[in-house]
Amino acid sequence: MDLAELQILMEDTFGAQDRQRGLPASMAWLCEEVGEFARAVRKGTRADQLEELGDVLAWLASVANQIGVSMDEAAARYSAGCPKCGGRPCACPGV
Amino acid sequence: MDLAELQILMEDTFGAQDRQRGLPASMAWLCEEVGEFARAVRKGTRADQLEELGDVLAWLASVANQIGVSMDEAAARYSAGCPKCGGRPCACPGV
Repeated sequence: MDLAELQILMEDTFGAQDRQRGLPASMAWLCEEVGEFARAVRKGTRADQLEELGDVLAWLASVANQIGVSMDEAAARYSAGCPKCGGRPCACPGV
Repeated sequence: MDLAELQILMEDTFGAQDRQRGLPASMAWLCEEVGEFARAVRKGTRADQLEELGDVLAWLASVANQIGVSMDEAAARYSAGCPKCGGRPCACPGV
């Protein structure tokens, strides 16, 4: 699935509810889902991890839609490799 | 950009450093970037929002790579609309 496609999908599916709920509440939901993803990563099953990762992506898209920013354009900063050193692989010191 | 493409890009660019840093530290970085995104949404410029959204996507991909889960497969749960009610738009009560 394309990032642009994901964003349109989220707009079609949840756009009206997103706007009714508003940005701060949507941001809170995103944070909640990131926490659930963290728990799934720490002690969940693969199925849990898949589900929570999907929820994080969905809520990230919802927030991106509400602020009118393109996920595709955001990811493009990485398209040639590390945005800092330009390397692919990254050649920055440290991890 | 495709979600699968994003994941490969992150593996090529940061995979070695990701494995050296390890999962808990990478999860902490993801949370840090989500916080920066929240600040950008609250009071940042459009450029800030684009940058931080890109960073969240990058770190999400890094963690997904380390746990061996596909972002594309994760997003697919939403491909027909709301995973709960099946609607596009969602017909679930409440927001």
